[in-house]
Amino acid sequence: MSNNSPKARSLRLIARCPDRIGIVARVATFLADRGASITQAAQYEELRSGTFFMRYGFDIPDAPGLLEKLTDAFTPVAKEFGMEWKLRDVSQRQRVVLLVSKFDHCLAYLLHRWKVGDLKMDVPCVISNHNDLRALVEWYGIPYHHVPVPKEAAGKQAAFEEIARRIEEAEPDTVVLARYMQIFPPWLCEKFRHRVINIHHSFLPSFVGGRPYHQADERGVKLIGATCHYVTEDLDAGPIIEQDVVRVRHSDTIEDMMRLGKDVENTVLARGLRYHLEDRVLVHGNKTILFA
Amino acid sequence: MSNNSPKARSLRLIARCPDRIGIVARVATFLADRGASITQAAQYEELRSGTFFMRYGFDIPDAPGLLEKLTDAFTPVAKEFGMEWKLRDVSQRQRVVLLVSKFDHCLAYLLHRWKVGDLKMDVPCVISNHNDLRALVEWYGIPYHHVPVPKEAAGKQAAFEEIARRIEEAEPDTVVLARYMQIFPPWLCEKFRHRVINIHHSFLPSFVGGRPYHQADERGVKLIGATCHYVTEDLDAGPIIEQDVVRVRHSDTIEDMMRLGKDVENTVLARGLRYHLEDRVLVHGNKTILFA
Amino acid sequence: MSNNSPKARSLRLIARCPDRIGIVARVATFLADRGASITQAAQYEELRSGTFFMRYGFDIPDAPGLLEKLTDAFTPVAKEFGMEWKLRDVSQRQRVVLLVSKFDHCLAYLLHRWKVGDLKMDVPCVISNHNDLRALVEWYGIPYHHVPVPKEAAGKQAAFEEIARRIEEAEPDTVVLARYMQIFPPWLCEKFRHRVINIHHSFLPSFVGGRPYHQADERGVKLIGATCHYVTEDLDAGPIIEQDVVRVRHSDTIEDMMRLGKDVENTVLARGLRYHLEDRVLVHGNKTILFA
Amino acid sequence: MSNNSPKARSLRLIARCPDRIGIVARVATFLADRGASITQAAQYEELRSGTFFMRYGFDIPDAPGLLEKLTDAFTPVAKEFGMEWKLRDVSQRQRVVLLVSKFDHCLAYLLHRWKVGDLKMDVPCVISNHNDLRALVEWYGIPYHHVPVPKEAAGKQAAFEEIARRIEEAEPDTVVLARYMQIFPPWLCEKFRHRVINIHHSFLPSFVGGRPYHQADERGVKLIGATCHYVTEDLDAGPIIEQDVVRVRHSDTIEDMMRLGKDVENTVLARGLRYHLEDRVLVHGNKTILFA
Repeated sequence: MSNNSPKARSLRLIARCPDRIGIVARVATFLADRGASITQAAQYEELRSGTFFMRYGFDIPDAPGLLEKLTDAFTPVAKEFGMEWKLRDVSQRQRVVLLVSKFDHCLAYLLHRWKVGDLKMDVPCVISNHNDLRALVEWYGIPYHHVPVPKEAAGKQAAFEEIARRIEEAEPDTVVLARYMQIFPPWLCEKFRHRVINIHHSFLPSFVGGRPYHQADERGVKLIGATCHYVTEDLDAGPIIEQDVVRVRHSDTIEDMMRLGKDVENTVLARGLRYHLEDRVLVHGNKTILFA
Repeated sequence: MSNNSPKARSLRLIARCPDRIGIVARVATFLADRGASITQAAQYEELRSGTFFMRYGFDIPDAPGLLEKLTDAFTPVAKEFGMEWKLRDVSQRQRVVLLVSKFDHCLAYLLHRWKVGDLKMDVPCVISNHNDLRALVEWYGIPYHHVPVPKEAAGKQAAFEEIARRIEEAEPDTVVLARYMQIFPPWLCEKFRHRVINIHHSFLPSFVGGRPYHQADERGVKLIGATCHYVTEDLDAGPIIEQDVVRVRHSDTIEDMMRLGKDVENTVLARGLRYHLEDRVLVHGNKTILFA
Repeated sequence: MSNNSPKARSLRLIARCPDRIGIVARVATFLADRGASITQAAQYEELRSGTFFMRYGFDIPDAPGLLEKLTDAFTPVAKEFGMEWKLRDVSQRQRVVLLVSKFDHCLAYLLHRWKVGDLKMDVPCVISNHNDLRALVEWYGIPYHHVPVPKEAAGKQAAFEEIARRIEEAEPDTVVLARYMQIFPPWLCEKFRHRVINIHHSFLPSFVGGRPYHQADERGVKLIGATCHYVTEDLDAGPIIEQDVVRVRHSDTIEDMMRLGKDVENTVLARGLRYHLEDRVLVHGNKTILFA
Repeated sequence: MSNNSPKARSLRLIARCPDRIGIVARVATFLADRGASITQAAQYEELRSGTFFMRYGFDIPDAPGLLEKLTDAFTPVAKEFGMEWKLRDVSQRQRVVLLVSKFDHCLAYLLHRWKVGDLKMDVPCVISNHNDLRALVEWYGIPYHHVPVPKEAAGKQAAFEEIARRIEEAEPDTVVLARYMQIFPPWLCEKFRHRVINIHHSFLPSFVGGRPYHQADERGVKLIGATCHYVTEDLDAGPIIEQDVVRVRHSDTIEDMMRLGKDVENTVLARGLRYHLEDRVLVHGNKTILFA
């Protein structure tokens, strides 16, 4: 029975560890002993590596210092099984910094979905290499930082150092590249490992790079797509979170594809980001476990 | 770690009960205590009715009379929580009787997928109100029963009594109406409750009845579909297992729709039947929990 | 060879007439005689009614009073074949009035796509029965008219008279109900016949009325959808322009469906409206010919 | 009005030529002058190359030697515009040779769809590098040629010479590689240029080569697909006819992908082949114009 009394709190446990007998029993008993009612549960055993993944949502009676006490109590259990884990209060919003260049459809879509409450997050700031979208962002009451990125190496390095500083000041949990057309330097990818999400305007691994619709037109594909993925130092090759496609016709120009593609990019990014915000995405090697 | 030693057996526990704290802990501990390694786990808490559903796959060391002993041991646990449940050996194939009329695409598709091992089941017989498909069925080495269904009530009643007898002789777990164009009488639906699967050639609840493509053409829809569902006494209104759609154009005739629809019917039925055979579908009221 | 010289103008001819031999020859000869290069051509012969539909795009050398002269010259041709027809300058934007209630996702989506040039139209005003979305609309520099719609008959009638007046003042080609939750009275449907476009939040004809996601949840469908259609006096039963669907899971709540549905509603309305703006949709009975 | 009198014949004209003013007028007048009623018409102007493509279906009064007379009469028109063209009797079936290896789902699907009349073609023979599928093919009354393909170069060359001879004896219009796992040598591709259709088990251009599902698993994509294309000397890089995708989950093994992929391969190949049989596919460079 769901514990919906006013004193219940909704938490989430995400963990991974080497697979062995008794993990579920141990964790579920731990929760039951504390009066927690499991409301969502998903687990997966990756056979090749023998890794076990779990995501449990539960309602638990509230008490002063609940999260800390629970963390302390669970630590020895986690140690016993060799877990990487986190315990999260469902009501606690992630802080998400958005980066954008000139194409503003994804930014506009995320800001709208955020404002109406469909994306549970806080947006401390938006960073752009252009100044064009300031009015839109400020209309939503969000600070806008214009950090131009020059082409030559030294200027580019300085720009990304400023970007890194701006991001760090914002203390984000997650960074979203909402059609940010600059390539993140490897040191910045590393600093926010598995916390930077990109939307790429193709069905990866097809059409890596900056002109996927041109490549799609060149190849004559009958469907185009979009891919939401974590950014790594390999361009457009990080772990995939979500993908989708839409049909195109021989008569569709590259401009038509760009227009049709926007709908898919918006949808795929909003869906992928939401999965991430709800801790549904666990990275394993270069793939993701998606507890959708 | 998955227990893949030759002495391991793969079983599956499916259960439902009133939701309360401690179910997962109790079940998982029961399994861990017996050396079982959980390989698949899915659960769901339906809030309105406060019902808990679970499907656990596990590998367990084999022993003489394993299934019986495990059943005996689990019975008091199930009783404690008020569970409806079943324990199934994954390697044990369901027996599936197929019924068909004249359109043979679904039948041909299922038989092919069965023969190449994509559908783990045994097919004791095929029953049809026509004799047309005997050669196809017998080529697969399966007995074919021709049971004509007259239009007038007495003849129809007698026919369905024969059909019921034929089905019962085959001792099936499941009955599939693979484009069987006769309406199952309520008493027959009741006899095989939630064990008769139908493929309907529309995206239900649109276009109930025998001429959905004509209705789709009439209404001018831009997508047509197919629905795999359990048969109940309400025509085309039983719990839905799987659905999918395909795009049509204004220039598509009803014959074009029928042809395009076949691809969808085949795919949806094969997918839905497979879910059912793997115990992934739990009926709740008039809906299904689908642990896909 | 496409006539892309600076003096060329892009026009569009849309016509329907009883089918007979020689229509294409006559129209194409008419165009060729005037130096027009056909750039897009689509035609369809509806067999049951014997009706012929065509949509021709062409580039033609510009001249003073071109559209009028062409219209005069084509009139006897059209008369000869009994055509209903229109000749349109591609660069001439339609005027589109938007109506909205409280859900603002479709409105926000259309306004964004309009601003970045993906929807070639002018928006003279937005009308709403609530005042909530004034700031959003005015940020785009568009007048916002708040016309509350009372529940009782007399007030409702007066409200719709004011709405009709507001619409007429705006001299629109097209009216879009972007999640406008009031039912248009028949006299208003008639006044703007086949010029009022609605987005319905279900895959019609399933789930007519105001609570489709609740009905979808009740029925347990595995896909939900959205439908863009012309408004007629029959609720949610007008000619369908475009539809699409998205998969849902048993664990998706009505709120989840509403959130997932927004992506589909946005995409389907943007796509359907664009088809309409480009004269790609020809209504025939209660269906549409879609020259996509 | 469609000329459906018993004396009408349904023909199809497919043509391409440099675009210029007056093509449609000329062709449509040619047809109208001969009493032909155009029932289907599609055309496309490819702007970069200035090429015009057309596909006209028409009903024309029958007469002795109709096709020859029409061909003679149209030849000067075609010459005037520099057309490549063909005139086809719709009722005349293409001869299609099928090649297959061990996976038989596509073969079984095509044979079934052919038998029930969904694919209007004749199948003079099936050729395979294995003997496994003889019984299936012969059940359909079709000759089966077993031509093993050795690994070493000389044997392989000899095998493909026998295959070429077998194909030529069958006098096919089209050759379909229905999961034929041998690479066609360039000289054989050239001999049947744009007449050999392959089904590739990925969403090309991703995952070229023989193990696409393994590559899809490796990359962690969220959708897998299939591609129907013309075979050229570049492996899996020929003009694409049709594509589609299906969603996969992190828990899907490579075997699951292969099983799910079969549904898509079947559908995409059946759809693509049908487009080809109905002369709806015009190759232009490495892309296709698809008059679907």
